[in-house]
Amino acid sequence: MAIATHVMKKFINDPADVVKESLAGLAAAHPDLVRVDFENQIVVRKDAPTGKVAIISGGGSGHEPMHGGFVGAGMLDAACPGEVFTSPVPDQMLAATKAVDGGAGVVHIVKNYTGDVMNFKLAAEMAEDENIKVESVLTNDDVAVEDSLYTAGRRGVGVTVLAEKIAGAKAEAGGSLEEVAAVARKVNDNGRSFGVAFTSAWTPASPTPTFEIGVDEMEFGVGIHGEPGRRREKVKPVAEIVAEMSEAILSDLDAPSGSNVLAFVNGLGGTPMIELYVIYSELAKQLAERGLTATRSLVGDYITSLEMAGASITLLKLDDELTALWDAPVHTPALRWGR
Amino acid sequence: MAIATHVMKKFINDPADVVKESLAGLAAAHPDLVRVDFENQIVVRKDAPTGKVAIISGGGSGHEPMHGGFVGAGMLDAACPGEVFTSPVPDQMLAATKAVDGGAGVVHIVKNYTGDVMNFKLAAEMAEDENIKVESVLTNDDVAVEDSLYTAGRRGVGVTVLAEKIAGAKAEAGGSLEEVAAVARKVNDNGRSFGVAFTSAWTPASPTPTFEIGVDEMEFGVGIHGEPGRRREKVKPVAEIVAEMSEAILSDLDAPSGSNVLAFVNGLGGTPMIELYVIYSELAKQLAERGLTATRSLVGDYITSLEMAGASITLLKLDDELTALWDAPVHTPALRWGR
Repeated sequence: MAIATHVMKKFINDPADVVKESLAGLAAAHPDLVRVDFENQIVVRKDAPTGKVAIISGGGSGHEPMHGGFVGAGMLDAACPGEVFTSPVPDQMLAATKAVDGGAGVVHIVKNYTGDVMNFKLAAEMAEDENIKVESVLTNDDVAVEDSLYTAGRRGVGVTVLAEKIAGAKAEAGGSLEEVAAVARKVNDNGRSFGVAFTSAWTPASPTPTFEIGVDEMEFGVGIHGEPGRRREKVKPVAEIVAEMSEAILSDLDAPSGSNVLAFVNGLGGTPMIELYVIYSELAKQLAERGLTATRSLVGDYITSLEMAGASITLLKLDDELTALWDAPVHTPALRWGR
Repeated sequence: MAIATHVMKKFINDPADVVKESLAGLAAAHPDLVRVDFENQIVVRKDAPTGKVAIISGGGSGHEPMHGGFVGAGMLDAACPGEVFTSPVPDQMLAATKAVDGGAGVVHIVKNYTGDVMNFKLAAEMAEDENIKVESVLTNDDVAVEDSLYTAGRRGVGVTVLAEKIAGAKAEAGGSLEEVAAVARKVNDNGRSFGVAFTSAWTPASPTPTFEIGVDEMEFGVGIHGEPGRRREKVKPVAEIVAEMSEAILSDLDAPSGSNVLAFVNGLGGTPMIELYVIYSELAKQLAERGLTATRSLVGDYITSLEMAGASITLLKLDDELTALWDAPVHTPALRWGR
């Protein structure tokens, strides 16, 4: 076994209590936006309007602010956090579905990881047994690899944030269950992502980091649980890193010259904002060289891997519908604009 | 010299270009909010209303989103970023002052570091020579140590973010130069901060991290440039860390039982959000035990030290005026709510 070069340094008490204590902090900091049902371990939106289609999501913890930080007006109605890097259980998802259904049905936004997919499927079946209509939408936008450590097919990553925002706006505007699910699928169909890591995450209950990586190496195409990407290589200038990331994305996304895109530069947890904006600068230049315009942007830590140093890029091809839904008001702990 | 245990891993090209490239990214990502004057190296608000009091701030880079990320409606009119951990020069500050003055005068919000204080003083004198009225407000809220590596008296840290938001709201509401400066001073007078670090920042041009720290140690009372705090000690449970941080703050701040506070848990760059909310949970509990209520909160990375793993707590005693100004709309790259 590899020897850890440093002990785990975290702001925690007992590693077993991290998720519950972090949820308690989320509830205490944002009592106007969310409440936490600790028995079912779900985050629920405060004061949701009745009668609208509801949206829930969920997955392992360690990716904050996703998903609990996206609960609120114009985005999610509930989130189901599992333990760190561990799928939530079907009972959580069922409890969330029942908590938010107002009769118009519930959309489940599910990242493509085997445990999440299986458990959300079971929860949807249980909900339907209780006469709640459910539409499931799968996100699988990570072009780095086909199949991965916990995934058959592509992994679901940054597009999930955008799908939750845009579907949330559609639901808030009175969209039907089918319409809300359809626009979430449209986001997934028109979005692609790619991530790179300089360092590993370290889960609170583990004696060592998730993976070992050399002092001058990066993982090109990393997953948000530290899953391997395409290759291990030497750290190089950001211009070259971004060129390879955007080539990987744009060779897979049908975005001809003249297209508008939402450019999302996401920090994986340990990379400071000064660097995220350097990435954004490179990305905007390289998009312009291809005749693409980033008419909307998002820069910051939105889907993370604990303290991993690294970043991902997500590009979403925009049309008028997606742009208007993106611009609609949102009021959650982590994403907030408009009224 | 200490031997570095890993090479610097950053998303950069030439270390000498980091600040300019990051500013280019800020401008490209938020063309609706800010523009960057690269000749003077200043970030300027787009579409500021004419005739209002203007507010500028500035300091070394490496603390993003502060200050460039706070330029926009309801907060700063301009920011002057120096090189990483290096004060901006008086010419930048003068250029910013002239760019934003609409005749009602300009407030300079200055963190208490020797270089910043000296250069802002020179800039204010130069501006007054050009018949621009300037009021300078010093922030010095860090209770960890009197005098420090770059500071006579206490360091200015987290309160700066709150002063910029609240003074910005006062200016937007039509406050006079004296009133805007007065409310910024009131925030500083009623706010206190304390920070701890698990790891060091590493400036892009340096061959080694800013300081060495043991594999099981934390710096208790760290500054945002890695300045020493009160002591080096072993990492311990977050409940104990927060208890010591809040004791240090509240033994210095006149906030009797029954007071309302704004509780600001700030990540220093490398600490993930799951941990920041664990800190917030502990803090809310410990405030309640003292009869204090956190009626407003801010949780996230707002004044950072590059990739440093660590966090600071800032408490601001609130009254109705400060609460209303905090709640007023703000629309900047990093802080955004209301309309």
